[in-house]
Amino acid sequence: MRMSELSTTTGVAVPTLKFYLREGLLHSGERTSPNQAQYDETHVERVRLVRALLEVGNLSVAQAARVVGALDADMPLSSVFGIAQRAVSIPSPIDNDRDVDADALPGVGATLIAELCERRGWRVHANNPGLALAARVLDTYAALGLESITTTVLEPGADAAQLVASADLAAVASAAPDPAEMTRVVAVGTVLGDSLIAGLRRIAQEAESFRRFPLPEGTPTPAPLTAAAIAAELDEDC
Amino acid sequence: MRMSELSTTTGVAVPTLKFYLREGLLHSGERTSPNQAQYDETHVERVRLVRALLEVGNLSVAQAARVVGALDADMPLSSVFGIAQRAVSIPSPIDNDRDVDADALPGVGATLIAELCERRGWRVHANNPGLALAARVLDTYAALGLESITTTVLEPGADAAQLVASADLAAVASAAPDPAEMTRVVAVGTVLGDSLIAGLRRIAQEAESFRRFPLPEGTPTPAPLTAAAIAAELDEDC
Repeated sequence: MRMSELSTTTGVAVPTLKFYLREGLLHSGERTSPNQAQYDETHVERVRLVRALLEVGNLSVAQAARVVGALDADMPLSSVFGIAQRAVSIPSPIDNDRDVDADALPGVGATLIAELCERRGWRVHANNPGLALAARVLDTYAALGLESITTTVLEPGADAAQLVASADLAAVASAAPDPAEMTRVVAVGTVLGDSLIAGLRRIAQEAESFRRFPLPEGTPTPAPLTAAAIAAELDEDC
Repeated sequence: MRMSELSTTTGVAVPTLKFYLREGLLHSGERTSPNQAQYDETHVERVRLVRALLEVGNLSVAQAARVVGALDADMPLSSVFGIAQRAVSIPSPIDNDRDVDADALPGVGATLIAELCERRGWRVHANNPGLALAARVLDTYAALGLESITTTVLEPGADAAQLVASADLAAVASAAPDPAEMTRVVAVGTVLGDSLIAGLRRIAQEAESFRRFPLPEGTPTPAPLTAAAIAAELDEDC
């Protein structure tokens, strides 16, 4: 198909497709004349994947390029996991502005996380991006005098992470033995899974909040949800 | 204390503090002369909170301003939850570039999430930001032909979310009956909790991946973690 058709099929405008090509997010089509190239199903699939990484996974173009690069490079699963995991560890937008000595932080986070891994028998490499991510949050709770959050949340959080990780790996295993499909599940599931869990956590928080802190008598409780009501909110977001 | 002292105490440079003041992230000090103001412990605490929201929570300045605004406005807990929940639903950086008709998505996500809430007795308002967030991820899995991820991950993910949400609310309850402290736990815990869970998920994923897909014979397994090794990675990130 031509680029215009690729655009119609995927719903992505031609200038955006050209941008994907330039940024290495999309492989070139087969050139049929100096000004024309032919695209196929592999391009349709890739465009959909790139859109998902950018728009739903909130990756930057550079991050998405690293993830699709991992898919193309035929890497071992564990490497793809690492790349996908790192892709979503969004660096702070004000990193360049950072003027704080990291040594000023108490460093309790690293100890708590190392102990947690020991206790649970979680054997991982020290460069696993989750270690620093989790340790920094616990350091921050400590710096804010909110150690009570750590005490209350760390163990249930680890239980929750174990549940999700087991399911993540089960999803990968269900795509076996096709290595390309397993890799795709790793990349997409890792990147988008954070948003899914974050979304479910918000829903459960509100439900739990009504349970724990009942509304004043006479306040109407939320109406039962319908798919249509959710779809309306989805449209509004877009 | 003067602004220079506030800077030394918090480790945040004076120009950054002035920026916080201009953006409404920090309340003004008490003016003692046309060019000087005095700051106190409430300023120290607020600067630490703002840093945490910006650098660890990855909020934009506008998002952080909404969260601290909610703290100052003495709002009911459920409203603070809503504002904090919305603050971390990071909009896509390429939203303006979006040229895709939302109606083109199959919309299975909204149905699956409405059914999930019904099944679990989760009563929430239709504008809970988690509903659209989760529904969009499930729509994306469907659009990519990866429904197998949904099948495998949705129920364990909901169990995990329930665990985390119960702990979140227990942390809020543990700060009772001080309403200001409860509000601070809601705001900080909601914003930073996503990163904590995302971090723990990455750790558990790698541990689970070694369990499910053992490395080839002879490959060394990761050395036991130490707090120092994690702290070294933390420093590198900064």
